[in-house]
Amino acid sequence: MNDLKHRIFSAVKDDLDDIEKALADNLNPYLDLVSEVAGHILFSGGKRLRPLLMVLSARICGYNGNYEKTFSTALEYLHAATLLHDDVVDEATLRRGKPAAHSKWGASITILVGDYLLARALSISAVTGRLRIVKILAGLTENMSQGEVHQLMRKGDINLTEAEYNEVIRRKTAMLFEAACRVSAILADATEEQETALSEFGYNLGIAFQMADDLFDYTLETSEFGKEVGADLREGKLTLPLIYALKQAPSGDRDIMIKIIQDPQFSEADFKTLTGLLEKYGGLTYTHNTATSFIDTAKKALAVFDPSATKDTMLDIADYVLNRSV
Amino acid sequence: MNDLKHRIFSAVKDDLDDIEKALADNLNPYLDLVSEVAGHILFSGGKRLRPLLMVLSARICGYNGNYEKTFSTALEYLHAATLLHDDVVDEATLRRGKPAAHSKWGASITILVGDYLLARALSISAVTGRLRIVKILAGLTENMSQGEVHQLMRKGDINLTEAEYNEVIRRKTAMLFEAACRVSAILADATEEQETALSEFGYNLGIAFQMADDLFDYTLETSEFGKEVGADLREGKLTLPLIYALKQAPSGDRDIMIKIIQDPQFSEADFKTLTGLLEKYGGLTYTHNTATSFIDTAKKALAVFDPSATKDTMLDIADYVLNRSV
Repeated sequence: MNDLKHRIFSAVKDDLDDIEKALADNLNPYLDLVSEVAGHILFSGGKRLRPLLMVLSARICGYNGNYEKTFSTALEYLHAATLLHDDVVDEATLRRGKPAAHSKWGASITILVGDYLLARALSISAVTGRLRIVKILAGLTENMSQGEVHQLMRKGDINLTEAEYNEVIRRKTAMLFEAACRVSAILADATEEQETALSEFGYNLGIAFQMADDLFDYTLETSEFGKEVGADLREGKLTLPLIYALKQAPSGDRDIMIKIIQDPQFSEADFKTLTGLLEKYGGLTYTHNTATSFIDTAKKALAVFDPSATKDTMLDIADYVLNRSV
Repeated sequence: MNDLKHRIFSAVKDDLDDIEKALADNLNPYLDLVSEVAGHILFSGGKRLRPLLMVLSARICGYNGNYEKTFSTALEYLHAATLLHDDVVDEATLRRGKPAAHSKWGASITILVGDYLLARALSISAVTGRLRIVKILAGLTENMSQGEVHQLMRKGDINLTEAEYNEVIRRKTAMLFEAACRVSAILADATEEQETALSEFGYNLGIAFQMADDLFDYTLETSEFGKEVGADLREGKLTLPLIYALKQAPSGDRDIMIKIIQDPQFSEADFKTLTGLLEKYGGLTYTHNTATSFIDTAKKALAVFDPSATKDTMLDIADYVLNRSV
C-alpha cells in the first residue's frame, strides 16, 4: 500500500505544493483571528483529496487556463466550513489529531469562521464566470446541511435502514466529491460525456470514501485515525457496519449490541465486544465489499478518457480511498 | 408616527403579501424539520424591510421582469441565516418575542438550518443569471461573518471606540441593506448612477437602522422590543449610546457605569442607573442625532430619481426606520 501512496504523491507533488499555497493565499480575511481559526482546520494535515481531484479533473479534460489551483480551494474551504460546523454540532473534541477548533476558540467564533469559509468558497467559484458552477455549489451546500440534519434526526435510532444511511452519506459526502469533479469539468469546457463521467467517478468515490471512514471508526486506533475511534457510536451515529450486523444478528447478540449502542458511557471492553460482533455478523466485511464495488464503478466511469498519466493517478487515488490508513 | 406606518403599509400591502408567499414557496427543503426551523425564524413577524427595499429598488429603476419577489427572498433568507447563527453565538433566549430557535431545537439543528438558508440565498441569486449579484452576496456574507467575529473579539471591552463600533455595524448590518438595494438595481439593468444612488440609500439606512436598534436596547420595554431589553449589555456588547456616554462622563460616574457593564448579574436597578447616566451624558441623544443624519444622507441619495409613488414610499421607510417602535 505504501507503493500506491508513494506513486500518487510523486505524481502530484507539485500540484499539492501549489494547492497548499493557494489555500493560504486566497483566504483573505481582514481579521487575523479569522485566518488563525480557518488556518487551524485548513492546515492540519488534510489529505487535499478534494482539491487534488479538482485539479486532475480539469487536467484530464484538457484544461489549459490558470485558475484550476485557485478554484480548487473553493471546495476545500467549503469542506473546512462543514468540518467546523460539524465539530460544533457533534461536540467532537479531536480533529486530525488536534483539538477541534471549537474547544480552542469556542463555538461562536467557530460557527462564524465556518460561515466565512462557506462564503469564500462561493466567491472563488463566482470568479470562474460560470453560473452553473455557482448553482452546483450552492445546491451542494443545501444538500450537505440537510444531510447533516437528517443524520441528527436519526441519532441513536437502532432502526435506521441501509437505504436511509445511503441517503445521508450521499448528501453529506458523495455530492461534494461529485461536485468537485463536475465543476472542474465545466471549468475545462469538457464535453457532456466527460462531465457525466467525472461526476460519476466523484460520486462513487465519495460514497466509498465515507464507508471507509465509517469502517475506520471501528477498526483503527485513535492515534492512526486522528479522531477518536468509536466517536460515531458515542455520538449515536449508526453507520453501515452496525446497521448490517444488527440486521444479521439473532436476538441474543442483537440485544447485547443494542445495549452497548444505547449506553453513551460504554467501556472499552464494551467497544471490543461490539467490534467482535460486527466482525462475527459480517458488518465489517459487508461494508468493505460494498465500498469496493463503489470504487469499481468509479474507476469504470473513467473509461471514456484516453490513457494518460493523469488518468492513472486518478485510478490510483480511487484505490487509495479504500486502502489509506486514514 | 402611526400615520407613517399606515401610509407605508397601504402602499405596499400587495407587495408584502407576495413576499410572504415567495418566502414560503422558495424554501424548498426535503426535510420537514428544516421547513419547521426555518419557518420559526422566517414567519415570526419580521418587518420584511429588506425584501421590501429590494422590490421597491427594482421598481424605482423601472424593472419589468417577474423575478423581483422571488429574488427578494434571497436577502431575507440570508438575514434569517445570520439571525439563527447569531442567536446561537449570543446565547439569546428571545427573538421577536418567541423563544430563539436554538432553545427549541438545540444549537446543532439551528446551525445547520442557518447553513441551508445561506445556501438557498445564493441559489436564488444565481437564477438571476448575473454573476455580479452572486459576487456581491458572497462578499456580503464574508463581511457579515467577520463583523460578528469582530464584535465578539471586543466583547466587554470598555475601550471600544466609536470608529470600531462603526466598522462593526457597517459590516454586520449596513452592507446587507446596501446589497439589497444594489443587487435589485443590477437585476433591473439600472444605470450606474442609479445603482450608486440606491447603494448609498441602503447603506446609510442600514447604519441608522442598527443605531436605532442599539438605542431600543436601552429605551424600550421587552414586550415592545421582542427581544430582551438590556440584552446587548448582558452579552458585553458596547454600543454607541454607551460608548459616547463613557467618553463624556467624569471619572466618578464613569466608574459607576463600568462597574455595571462588567457585572453580568446587574440588577434592574443597576440597569436604570445606567440608562439614567446614558441620558445624563447625552449617549441617547447623540445616538439618535447621528442616526438621523444617516437617514438624511440616505434620503438625499434618492434625488437622482424622478418623483413617484415608489420614491415616496422609500422616503417614508427611511423615516420609519428611526421612528418605528421596534
